[in-house]
Amino acid sequence: MSSEDTAIHAKAIELGKLAVIATTAAKSGHPTTSLSLAHLVTVLMYRVMRWDPQHPEAPNADRLILSEGHAVPIVYAACADLGVAFTPADGRRRMTVEDLQGLRAIDSPVDGHPNPRLGFPFFDAATGSLGQGLSIAAGLGLAARLDNTGRRIFCVIGDGESREGQIWEAMDFIADQGLRNVVAIFNCNQLGQSDFVSKAQSAESLARKAEAFGWDTVTIDGHAPAEILAALDRQGGERPRCIVAKTVKGWGVPELGGTGHHGTPVPQDKLGSVIATLDRLARDLGADTVDTKQVFGAGKPQAWHAQAPAAATPAGFQAAVAGDAKARSAVEAGALSPRRAYGIALRALGEANPAVVAIDGDVKNSTYAEMFAQAYPERYFEGRIAEQNMISAGAGLAAGGKVPFVSTFGKFLIRGYDQLEMALIGGANIKLVGSHVGVTIAADGPSQMALADVAFMRAYAHVQDHRGQPAMTVLTPSDAASAYALTVAMAAYQGACYLRALRADLPVLYKEEDRFPFGGQKMLRLAGRDAGGVLLVASGYLVHTCLEAAERLEASGIPVSVIDAYALPMEAGPVLQTAREQRGVIFVVEDVYTGGIGSELAEAAASAIAPPRVVSLHVGRFPKSGRSAGDLLRYVGLSADDIVKTVGETVSG
Amino acid sequence: MSSEDTAIHAKAIELGKLAVIATTAAKSGHPTTSLSLAHLVTVLMYRVMRWDPQHPEAPNADRLILSEGHAVPIVYAACADLGVAFTPADGRRRMTVEDLQGLRAIDSPVDGHPNPRLGFPFFDAATGSLGQGLSIAAGLGLAARLDNTGRRIFCVIGDGESREGQIWEAMDFIADQGLRNVVAIFNCNQLGQSDFVSKAQSAESLARKAEAFGWDTVTIDGHAPAEILAALDRQGGERPRCIVAKTVKGWGVPELGGTGHHGTPVPQDKLGSVIATLDRLARDLGADTVDTKQVFGAGKPQAWHAQAPAAATPAGFQAAVAGDAKARSAVEAGALSPRRAYGIALRALGEANPAVVAIDGDVKNSTYAEMFAQAYPERYFEGRIAEQNMISAGAGLAAGGKVPFVSTFGKFLIRGYDQLEMALIGGANIKLVGSHVGVTIAADGPSQMALADVAFMRAYAHVQDHRGQPAMTVLTPSDAASAYALTVAMAAYQGACYLRALRADLPVLYKEEDRFPFGGQKMLRLAGRDAGGVLLVASGYLVHTCLEAAERLEASGIPVSVIDAYALPMEAGPVLQTAREQRGVIFVVEDVYTGGIGSELAEAAASAIAPPRVVSLHVGRFPKSGRSAGDLLRYVGLSADDIVKTVGETVSG
Repeated sequence: MSSEDTAIHAKAIELGKLAVIATTAAKSGHPTTSLSLAHLVTVLMYRVMRWDPQHPEAPNADRLILSEGHAVPIVYAACADLGVAFTPADGRRRMTVEDLQGLRAIDSPVDGHPNPRLGFPFFDAATGSLGQGLSIAAGLGLAARLDNTGRRIFCVIGDGESREGQIWEAMDFIADQGLRNVVAIFNCNQLGQSDFVSKAQSAESLARKAEAFGWDTVTIDGHAPAEILAALDRQGGERPRCIVAKTVKGWGVPELGGTGHHGTPVPQDKLGSVIATLDRLARDLGADTVDTKQVFGAGKPQAWHAQAPAAATPAGFQAAVAGDAKARSAVEAGALSPRRAYGIALRALGEANPAVVAIDGDVKNSTYAEMFAQAYPERYFEGRIAEQNMISAGAGLAAGGKVPFVSTFGKFLIRGYDQLEMALIGGANIKLVGSHVGVTIAADGPSQMALADVAFMRAYAHVQDHRGQPAMTVLTPSDAASAYALTVAMAAYQGACYLRALRADLPVLYKEEDRFPFGGQKMLRLAGRDAGGVLLVASGYLVHTCLEAAERLEASGIPVSVIDAYALPMEAGPVLQTAREQRGVIFVVEDVYTGGIGSELAEAAASAIAPPRVVSLHVGRFPKSGRSAGDLLRYVGLSADDIVKTVGETVSG
Repeated sequence: MSSEDTAIHAKAIELGKLAVIATTAAKSGHPTTSLSLAHLVTVLMYRVMRWDPQHPEAPNADRLILSEGHAVPIVYAACADLGVAFTPADGRRRMTVEDLQGLRAIDSPVDGHPNPRLGFPFFDAATGSLGQGLSIAAGLGLAARLDNTGRRIFCVIGDGESREGQIWEAMDFIADQGLRNVVAIFNCNQLGQSDFVSKAQSAESLARKAEAFGWDTVTIDGHAPAEILAALDRQGGERPRCIVAKTVKGWGVPELGGTGHHGTPVPQDKLGSVIATLDRLARDLGADTVDTKQVFGAGKPQAWHAQAPAAATPAGFQAAVAGDAKARSAVEAGALSPRRAYGIALRALGEANPAVVAIDGDVKNSTYAEMFAQAYPERYFEGRIAEQNMISAGAGLAAGGKVPFVSTFGKFLIRGYDQLEMALIGGANIKLVGSHVGVTIAADGPSQMALADVAFMRAYAHVQDHRGQPAMTVLTPSDAASAYALTVAMAAYQGACYLRALRADLPVLYKEEDRFPFGGQKMLRLAGRDAGGVLLVASGYLVHTCLEAAERLEASGIPVSVIDAYALPMEAGPVLQTAREQRGVIFVVEDVYTGGIGSELAEAAASAIAPPRVVSLHVGRFPKSGRSAGDLLRYVGLSADDIVKTVGETVSG
């Protein structure tokens, strides 16, 4: 064995011991998965990655994405050994081996799974829900290529985890994008949580699949230092590089092998024997006499200087519309869709801010992301029909300093909600755009309509992120001018947003100078104070329906106020106050299922003193196809007729 | 050309014309995708499938799953031609060509995408959100194999659609399960919506991938009748069968080829010319003189008789616990986890009801689905780490007459919410079980905690399904006895349910004879009427925390009632009434984000006359790891201390 091999074995065993000890201290965690990665992590962090432990997040530093996040104790062990910078409660400093004792403790940033937002900047993104790391790596890789940072991204994926379809979405995406700075490493320890992995996830099968997906693939012994080094040094030619590493779960400790040891720490009373086994192994390998303090030999990051010019102010709505023939004629004809306004705004942002990038899921001609794609092709990444990858790649782009707009139909974003949750946990500055929301798309039917999206997103609208802001801001503009303004605002805002960009052409309600602060709402029509009027609150398409209903109600003698509640979370106070100054009842009208503005106002009212009543009209049955928006609104009981009738019955009842 | 070929060409062109005409009438839809499938659909529906158009849903009838649901006009055309039974508003009858004119109309079951619940039993499940069909086919295939019906399932998948990772999850799953009654057919027309597909989705690439995933794969010309027939006749040996069909989008009509024609009907004024082009083609092929009425030659379904014995009543909680050594000793020690009670109940259901089946995502030792797996291995399907496939396969199993319990951590179910939505739209009788919900799992941290699950599911709790019931029932039992009872109730209920099976060992609160009707709640402690008490409402773990807080509040002189609100939707009237008879304020305590019981009660209160106040305590920040449930409850402000403090301040304030 070469001295290099011996040194890596020595360090791998040292880290393995630290990982075992830490999980025993935590009384939970994954020592056996950690041991399977001992050599791979050692070679990556001590030999291959170009980085500075004091500045792990430097834009030109190589990165390690641990897709199988539960293996994190072995990475923490290396970080403790190398004194990687982290930020416990007492402020940023270098990690020590003693800090490993805080694994999974409530007051420690050494969390159960990777999470940069708790003070662990070695990681770019939160992982732990499986299958997402390679997509995040892809986003980081795209950002690094755009900025020419020289950064490389190494992504470690579990074999059981590779059953997740998202892994294969990412394999396609990276091959499509021709990314050469991302290396996929499959950790084939043959064991999942509850059993051996399927033969479909054997090393041989994974290597066959990776080749079929267009990757240059090599299979190695993941505990043989020289093989790991050679595989990581190897250049992939035209294709992205994949390493399939055969490893042993619980490496070095026979009694931790086989099934039944996943996520099971070594009991305190057996810890001494496990450590002794590893020490014995070190002796057998001749690794017990290595001065492991000397093992770190990773290079510094390559020189790099930030190149991105600062963001300018994008064009205003009028100028942007004037510069686009189709939009101009649509406005002249009286109606422009919020989704087209989104496309125009995104293109304007592309000019103003070089950090703005976009991904779309093969519907760019529906979401109008194509306007950006045509103008800034180098900053547009076609995500194809693979929404999970798209959202996680967006999180990766955000971690790489970009402002990613990720678009598809709102319905299809739903299949990436787990990925979105992980992006939010990791604090990603991601901008989601869902078109075709609500029932008014009509003809295509319910498989294309986003109707539970607001309920889900609103949950995060009331979670505080690490910036002290809502973890999610939901925006449903009712016209093109507000859609434009809100898109511009999303780019300037630090934090996750979700724009619901309606498909329908709608009359323009607002002027360029109107402002749409997050949390706010717009009074479109206000009955005189104490006029005994009713208050209608809506967003998006239904704002127009409410305005129509208001005309008819007023004609029948009922004064009506109409509020456009374009944002969630919502500052509810002014709405409740308006209602109090009227008849004390709010009618909320939404073409989504329960859980949107109606819930927001009901919660505010129910906890208030002297609350107004809140009557919620929302979708309460599964929609179907219809040939017009009107067909659908009648079908779900949200037409102007329905509003007039409900208000009339309530007022007279 | 053989007369067989000519006849199939004739029928394919006839159906193609009908599909084009129908989409023109609807002014929306996908004529070009339809034309790409004209021959495949003809051969399948007229030659290969064994079925009776009058009884398309017969358990032994072969089935066609159109994963690329937007291609449905070509299937509707065949159904109209064959007089397939469907159920328009005037009752079940055979479809006619005239019915095609109703495509996508609000009063027609001929919807924009396949949906059995609108009265179109030719389909088993709703499709249209892409990538889900093969998983549904897998579920149907498993059910057919269990029942030995002889049914075969043919699944048509788009090439662009095959970018969805779920397709590859399904490819693995079907190979793992050794299913031979499912045939995957990739329709490679080379075009997605907005562009040509990636070369990663070329026919050649898809064939390579399918082989790497263990499928016996053949590539054919999808417009050559003899090749299609030969491929479908071919036996696959030990491996599942895959057909990669090269087709032409807009087949037969050159001006509909290339990009820019996806989802675009032929304008009325060009319809004549398109039809003439297809007629000319028929002449060129010698297919214009075929009597196409004679083309249908599909066989009848094979003889089959229902074999499943009727369901019996499962054992009661006490007997089930008594029969399980670990559960018995846990109860004797004072605490049993709801998830283990779920496992015990599932095993008891397995004995009582042969229709009960289960899928789990490699966490069966955490969800306790393993108790069922060990007892009934032939009815347990290991889903591995692939949640999207698991949920859609569950929908397929339900369509095949089974009662599927689909389990994993509640967090990981979230990545299948789009699939769940499609299952709900299709009316699937599916039972989801999410373990490890809420913050009290502590150590593993937020990547493993379901916290927005209730907000999403509650949206569907207020949608009426085709049975007139809530489209989703959410159940969060607070102890093992109620978890057991609710699991049994889920199996007996026709409709989708979601059981949140907590990880923690909890004291048993209920007796075997206690009943837990859906929509109900349990009064665990009731202050005397008009005692000026406060009302605490919680579910799951927090019920116990509230009981602890109640003891302390009473000790300080504040009478307290505690309600276990185990179900959503909730009959809120009794809760509001209890609050009115006390101090008029409800404290809701939940370890999820906004959108659960607090919203449910706030909505009920805000629309009520003389409402009580609703004060909601929920998770308002991202959690992290901690070493105990108490650590986490304190971190998010939901400990008994926090409850006592909030109640105290409110009461004195």
